[in-house]
Amino acid sequence: MATGLAMAADGRVRPRVVIVGGGFGGIHAALGLAKLPVDITLIDRRNHHVFQPLLYQVALAVLSPADIAQPIRSILRDHKNIDVLMDEVVGFDTTQGRVNLKTGLQMEYDYLIVATGSTHSYFGKDEWAKLAPGLKTIEDATEIRRRVLLAFELAERQMLETGEHPALNFVIIGGGPTGVELAGAISDIARLYMAKDFRHIDPSQAQVLILEGSPKLLGAYPEDLQASALAQLNKLGVKVRTGTHVTDVQPGYVMVGEEKIETVVTLWAAGVQASPLGKLLGVETDKKGCVFVDEHLNPRILAAGGEAAKSVPNVFICGDLAHFEQDGKQVPGVAQPAMQMGDYAAKRIGEILTGKPAAKGFRYWDKGDMATIGRSAAVAKIEWPFKAHWSGFPAWMMWLAVHIFFLIGFRNRFSVFRQWAWTYLTLNDGARLITGSQALPGWGGSTPATPTPAAGIDLGSPKTN
Amino acid sequence: MATGLAMAADGRVRPRVVIVGGGFGGIHAALGLAKLPVDITLIDRRNHHVFQPLLYQVALAVLSPADIAQPIRSILRDHKNIDVLMDEVVGFDTTQGRVNLKTGLQMEYDYLIVATGSTHSYFGKDEWAKLAPGLKTIEDATEIRRRVLLAFELAERQMLETGEHPALNFVIIGGGPTGVELAGAISDIARLYMAKDFRHIDPSQAQVLILEGSPKLLGAYPEDLQASALAQLNKLGVKVRTGTHVTDVQPGYVMVGEEKIETVVTLWAAGVQASPLGKLLGVETDKKGCVFVDEHLNPRILAAGGEAAKSVPNVFICGDLAHFEQDGKQVPGVAQPAMQMGDYAAKRIGEILTGKPAAKGFRYWDKGDMATIGRSAAVAKIEWPFKAHWSGFPAWMMWLAVHIFFLIGFRNRFSVFRQWAWTYLTLNDGARLITGSQALPGWGGSTPATPTPAAGIDLGSPKTN
Repeated sequence: MATGLAMAADGRVRPRVVIVGGGFGGIHAALGLAKLPVDITLIDRRNHHVFQPLLYQVALAVLSPADIAQPIRSILRDHKNIDVLMDEVVGFDTTQGRVNLKTGLQMEYDYLIVATGSTHSYFGKDEWAKLAPGLKTIEDATEIRRRVLLAFELAERQMLETGEHPALNFVIIGGGPTGVELAGAISDIARLYMAKDFRHIDPSQAQVLILEGSPKLLGAYPEDLQASALAQLNKLGVKVRTGTHVTDVQPGYVMVGEEKIETVVTLWAAGVQASPLGKLLGVETDKKGCVFVDEHLNPRILAAGGEAAKSVPNVFICGDLAHFEQDGKQVPGVAQPAMQMGDYAAKRIGEILTGKPAAKGFRYWDKGDMATIGRSAAVAKIEWPFKAHWSGFPAWMMWLAVHIFFLIGFRNRFSVFRQWAWTYLTLNDGARLITGSQALPGWGGSTPATPTPAAGIDLGSPKTN
Repeated sequence: MATGLAMAADGRVRPRVVIVGGGFGGIHAALGLAKLPVDITLIDRRNHHVFQPLLYQVALAVLSPADIAQPIRSILRDHKNIDVLMDEVVGFDTTQGRVNLKTGLQMEYDYLIVATGSTHSYFGKDEWAKLAPGLKTIEDATEIRRRVLLAFELAERQMLETGEHPALNFVIIGGGPTGVELAGAISDIARLYMAKDFRHIDPSQAQVLILEGSPKLLGAYPEDLQASALAQLNKLGVKVRTGTHVTDVQPGYVMVGEEKIETVVTLWAAGVQASPLGKLLGVETDKKGCVFVDEHLNPRILAAGGEAAKSVPNVFICGDLAHFEQDGKQVPGVAQPAMQMGDYAAKRIGEILTGKPAAKGFRYWDKGDMATIGRSAAVAKIEWPFKAHWSGFPAWMMWLAVHIFFLIGFRNRFSVFRQWAWTYLTLNDGARLITGSQALPGWGGSTPATPTPAAGIDLGSPKTN
């Protein structure tokens, strides 16, 4: 059944815009379009928008999911021309202007914005996913939290059993911003927060190791900040090995060529690939599945049998899913470009509706980039309002201010600030709950969820008596 | 391998107390014992203590799990003679004074406190558990949240598909305090919070129905409060049917004899049974598995072949697991008696250690009982410091004050208060995230968790085109 959601009550037919994806790109597009005489449907298979840059703080038990995620409906509720639908897109018909949903519904559109982002890439080794989870969703974050917290619990028990302090090695594969932030946060948890909680093990003996394939940590940052990040990580006790390719991931260890590195928790921060929806559009994509877009963020339909590829002027690709080149470089898949692309797509649709020619093509305005390294250190490459490279505490203060400012919704902003201040000042609590599968690895038990095998946590063989 | 955890560094052997269970009883016992010259090990299979009376607010998306749950280690961290172990008890040897753990460890004890509480009872119909979840754990709460929120999302989609407003019937089996609180909260969510978020369905059309087997709602309350609770529920649009026995629970409906009642979400608040650990002790239990205890909270070992049953003076049963009679009535399985029993067991061990005879037996000091009914109504049976029956807003204010006061830890108290105030004043947000299985019922999808079939949510058969 095909449905035109937005048939107005007064019978007037307004152009329909379908937005797929409720991340930064989709939300910004929706908010930009809300003022225009259009009817908008935003489709996402989740009910919530996630403030991705703070997801690692949920994973490391500083924040709660509700601090950084908000129902998409709530964000958009004041805009009466926006409709939110929780559903999953399984196909497109760009000729007819239709989106096919998993439930069988079809949505007609005059304009389509696809902003479904990216997901982890295990470079073809999908079996590694369970052993080394990545960080993209709230569920990923709570699973990582579970594994990290359980590792300490299991070590405590092993110590009781054997009398020997077990190794507490945490291995993070990938030395980009996510890898660096996870590493700093695990080091913090172990040294600052967990130290008082255990009687037998010494959590500060935890070792955090980043394995990065390329020659440089934080490849997208300038060299001075790379060096500073490395120095700050080392100060926290985090070890970094660059130019190191992981060749296998197994429960309890990873392999780097012939070398075996033991680990209690392995995390994946190495590769991303585009959402599969790019390919479903039947347009030109790069090898990661990102859609090549022109200066108006329009993709090009793959031409059949020798015809010239033609641009699709009523379809826009925003955020991580878009492959947009500027000054000879691909714009990175982070929050800022996604927001700006969403804004642009909305503005461009406004131009088309009023018959205006495109004022100008999209241009990414890079205000800078930053990554935290633990509790009070960071690196910041500032591009606007002035150019600077900051490190350490000033960079961290800036990171704090920017992230509080950009959190959507006052409630979250206030809540996160309060939580940070409290945790920072008291080194207390946070949200260190082990939920999901309560069962310890290898246990049965009557737990509601199916226990995910906690990779790399090897209890040894428990002796009965 | 048997281990005596607490062998002191100076070789001095102090009595060892093992506490099983980190609920109200176990935590209170641990805190009471912390001042004594004993070494304490608290064992729980979860890492966190849950403030059960507010669990329904997590289920109905007002609070986040971290607001009402706290790591047991954190609660007890300042007491150096308390050791916390995340493990599961699988057996006892009360003759040798040993606790057997799932991992194979054995813990020796001089004194044992078992406070493992209760769980849902489906009266032998365990297949109902998936169709009608109960509310005991953080996972239960997030699963209920998921189902309730999804029901609205699915209704919105069904409305788009069919053009007809689907029924939104929520059925709660059981009319005790939990059933009443869940019912009031669902009605609130539907009428107050969700109404602004949907474009097609009218969430206020949701119907909430309580089915109670006994002749009275809130059986443990005095009649005037029962009547008041019923009136307050009816004012919220909640329907109550007493003397109504559910004979079957199926996806999408429940049966009451020959009558079929359709439902989008079914919740279980009807029966509880004791933790199975009571039976593993080899002591006398009642038909719910609760352990009969004497005035010192000691159980009696089942006597073999005609011998007289003998009391076990170094084993104490606290909280829901204990069957303690006072003035001819069994003390109810709620928070207050559990706390008081924990306190008593600690005090009694102190008496034994100093060779004192028991000053007096345990006596439950009933300060009263209360249940909320939605956002600003409640019933309260006050026993102390004065006797009174309160209803409506005053009862709700008292409920608020008492629950904030008893929350363990300043952080949680402050956080919950702030969250309540914010949600109450603005009717905004809360923590309405659908997590866990993101997949809608009947979907596949690449979700991390295994989708639990969402009972009672029937999408019909989605039409493809």
